[in-house]
Amino acid sequence: MITSISQSPLYPIANPKTIAFFGASNNFSAMGSSILNSILSEGFEGTIYPVHPREKRVLNLTAYSDVKDIPEAADLAFIVLPTKIVAQTLKACGEKGIRHAVIVSAGFNEVGGEGVERQKELQEIARHYNIRFTGPNCIGVVNSHLKLNATFLPAEGKTGFIGMASQSGSFITQMFSYLNSRFGQGFSTGFSLGNEANIDMVDCIEYLGACPDTRVIALYIESIRQGQKFIEIARRVSTQKPIVAFYAGGSETGKRACLSHTGSLAGPDRLYDGVFKQSGIIRAQSIEELFDFCYALGSSPLPRGNRVIIQTHSGGPGAAAADACERSGLELPQLSSETLEKLTPFIPHTGSANNPIDLTYTKNPLDFFHGIPKVLLEEKGADGMLIYFLATVEMVHQILTAMGVPEAEIDTQMEMIVDSQCQSIISLIKTHEKPVIGFSFLTRNNRFIATLQDKGVPVMASPERAARAFGAMAEYRRLREKIVQQEDQP
Amino acid sequence: MITSISQSPLYPIANPKTIAFFGASNNFSAMGSSILNSILSEGFEGTIYPVHPREKRVLNLTAYSDVKDIPEAADLAFIVLPTKIVAQTLKACGEKGIRHAVIVSAGFNEVGGEGVERQKELQEIARHYNIRFTGPNCIGVVNSHLKLNATFLPAEGKTGFIGMASQSGSFITQMFSYLNSRFGQGFSTGFSLGNEANIDMVDCIEYLGACPDTRVIALYIESIRQGQKFIEIARRVSTQKPIVAFYAGGSETGKRACLSHTGSLAGPDRLYDGVFKQSGIIRAQSIEELFDFCYALGSSPLPRGNRVIIQTHSGGPGAAAADACERSGLELPQLSSETLEKLTPFIPHTGSANNPIDLTYTKNPLDFFHGIPKVLLEEKGADGMLIYFLATVEMVHQILTAMGVPEAEIDTQMEMIVDSQCQSIISLIKTHEKPVIGFSFLTRNNRFIATLQDKGVPVMASPERAARAFGAMAEYRRLREKIVQQEDQP
Repeated sequence: MITSISQSPLYPIANPKTIAFFGASNNFSAMGSSILNSILSEGFEGTIYPVHPREKRVLNLTAYSDVKDIPEAADLAFIVLPTKIVAQTLKACGEKGIRHAVIVSAGFNEVGGEGVERQKELQEIARHYNIRFTGPNCIGVVNSHLKLNATFLPAEGKTGFIGMASQSGSFITQMFSYLNSRFGQGFSTGFSLGNEANIDMVDCIEYLGACPDTRVIALYIESIRQGQKFIEIARRVSTQKPIVAFYAGGSETGKRACLSHTGSLAGPDRLYDGVFKQSGIIRAQSIEELFDFCYALGSSPLPRGNRVIIQTHSGGPGAAAADACERSGLELPQLSSETLEKLTPFIPHTGSANNPIDLTYTKNPLDFFHGIPKVLLEEKGADGMLIYFLATVEMVHQILTAMGVPEAEIDTQMEMIVDSQCQSIISLIKTHEKPVIGFSFLTRNNRFIATLQDKGVPVMASPERAARAFGAMAEYRRLREKIVQQEDQP
Repeated sequence: MITSISQSPLYPIANPKTIAFFGASNNFSAMGSSILNSILSEGFEGTIYPVHPREKRVLNLTAYSDVKDIPEAADLAFIVLPTKIVAQTLKACGEKGIRHAVIVSAGFNEVGGEGVERQKELQEIARHYNIRFTGPNCIGVVNSHLKLNATFLPAEGKTGFIGMASQSGSFITQMFSYLNSRFGQGFSTGFSLGNEANIDMVDCIEYLGACPDTRVIALYIESIRQGQKFIEIARRVSTQKPIVAFYAGGSETGKRACLSHTGSLAGPDRLYDGVFKQSGIIRAQSIEELFDFCYALGSSPLPRGNRVIIQTHSGGPGAAAADACERSGLELPQLSSETLEKLTPFIPHTGSANNPIDLTYTKNPLDFFHGIPKVLLEEKGADGMLIYFLATVEMVHQILTAMGVPEAEIDTQMEMIVDSQCQSIISLIKTHEKPVIGFSFLTRNNRFIATLQDKGVPVMASPERAARAFGAMAEYRRLREKIVQQEDQP
């Protein structure tokens, strides 16, 4: 296994300094132009050599009519050309000394018939010239830390800690805005794999495992091609950082859809369950869950076990979370008498010190963010917490407005309140090294939620999703320990 | 069963013209003040009589030191007082001739011990004076069509078609912003039930069944108190409009949480499954699903069967949707030769006319919104569609920017494109009377998604959620037909 990303065939693909670009023109609606446009808009700092048979300049860059005329053997060839001229282009790149490529063009294995032959031809050329490539039928690559967005959609997002390898390009390009709008997160690096004619998912897992910007690995899988190697590598990487996978081919209908999409042959659900468990991979049941789990795993310390305390001031969301906890393999322990004693001053007579701890309508809202979670995090019989966040900020706003406080002053006060509440939670997490997963029906449009997330408290979109994310963290810890134990045996 | 809401004991609670309000003061942070403040801020047009032992004016309204001094027997008493004076207040209301109440105060059955006695006392008083009331331990009531928001959180939302009855007040107050931010929706009427000492969920189902503003009924359930009556009424209402329920007490942990919350004794999961099926109620597995299902059921015509066509230009989201369809009991039929023939001109050679129909990168993006769905809706072998929406608007924006088109002009063009695309989809749905459920990872912050939703196309947050919502619609139709058939038998 590699110890540094520079040893990976994906290194020049995710970290190119020079790119030979095929398929961009001054026809702005062409796919190739869109991708080049994305790269330029994002502020990529490397050098790009557009290659175009007729145009002298492409998107304001000097264009070359032939790859052999570009001033150097670029780190990477990026190919977005009509199917029938892809092979000859790859060959020309090989002649030029280019050793890495991304082939976006489609019309290969996934269409069957002649496409299968065409894909074999690409593989032959690559073998001959020692070229490593992703695709064909992929969407590109992103490395947000290098400001490289080589996909056709603008990257409406930020750098982040989720490394992604996907057998569907959509989950790279279209998830920037998703991760940003839900979590204020982004990808560290994202690979779209397409038909995996050369580089495959195993290479990506290895790369992302070694990538210092990646805290957690997300996989979108339609089929695994090299089962043994996949398990071997994933099993090693998952002892270092968590891997979460979504598998789309488990049902008969899903299998058929995957076949038309990337020409891959999916296997039965149960087989994949086994492969994931053996590899230490957490399986997500939906795309939302894939990113929920990654977000929680990348944000929080791992729980030592599966005992959770739920803190709420709303009985319903508390009960829904409790119900979901059991369904996610978690336990809600009763509090120790020591904790109960410390908690008493905070609990109104209408509240409940059973777990969920339901504060109902607390007199001092600040207790919810400091005094109470502090006591609960100190409880030795629990491994972490779920906290429900509601629109307290809006309530305070409404109260201050009713009191006739001027709007500008309210704004300043709100900012102070939000900051101090968030800061308080953060310090508690740091001190106690236990995971605290928030949940709320509010979105990042709410300042409080955005601030919490931006400061590092994962806030999930519902009680069930918070419970499942906590369950995934506990499961990852168990799987990892099991693998480490097995490996330690002689 | 009632035929008009005016026959319901809930009518004066949801449609009061005059309210005697207990528990508001000029202490703005008190719960009662918050609620009265919400009512006033929302612009409620009825008359409010605050009752307060000492203050002469409360939130700028004339206050009365005793309920017997208010000028009339109000339609509704709204009680947010300390536990120990609730009973005497309810009695005084009875003396005054007030016959309906909302009791927000907590400290009754849900705390056990003396609380149980206190709740019996309320019931006695109500029986004596012929008072019908919701609560105690509830949060209030909303009727967005009357601008009545009698809960402690501001109603950041609009009128809508979802009628809600909830054994947790949070799912009334806190779901305004949820429904608004996700769907641009709101509640028609929402009842928080609390301990159900008098009025219970069955009354709400009856009311909402007759409510002309309510197209679909959402229930949050911790326990059903009168099983037979619940089934009897729900079974009748569900032949008229869909009912969706989330049940929090199914697991042991959930059951314990419900007991502390509203003092209710929950039953095993399977029992509730049976009750729901018998009643024609669709069961949601999470709070998100509860509102997803309601939103889809209230927006779309019902499918005649379970055969779905998926239209996408992204293979991954298409495959994920296909997989989720099978798991939701749906089928993806192959297209007839007639449809295939009509579709051929639209499908690029890299795309797929298998189901999912994957357009990949279409030459003319407008086909995606008109030509293609038109052909697919005409397919006789299918009962409806799922359509994936991605950020095409952003792509066009990026292209126009690259072409040097000025920002203001781009804005105008974008607006035109969005409008015509949405309009096109809408007309197709109207013509074909089949459900079209959209899905996208974008939020309402995206103009295209907001416009689609506002014009009546339900857009769900993920492929899985769209598939499950379609599944719920097909299930509702099946359940309803079964009940109608059974009722028709002699």
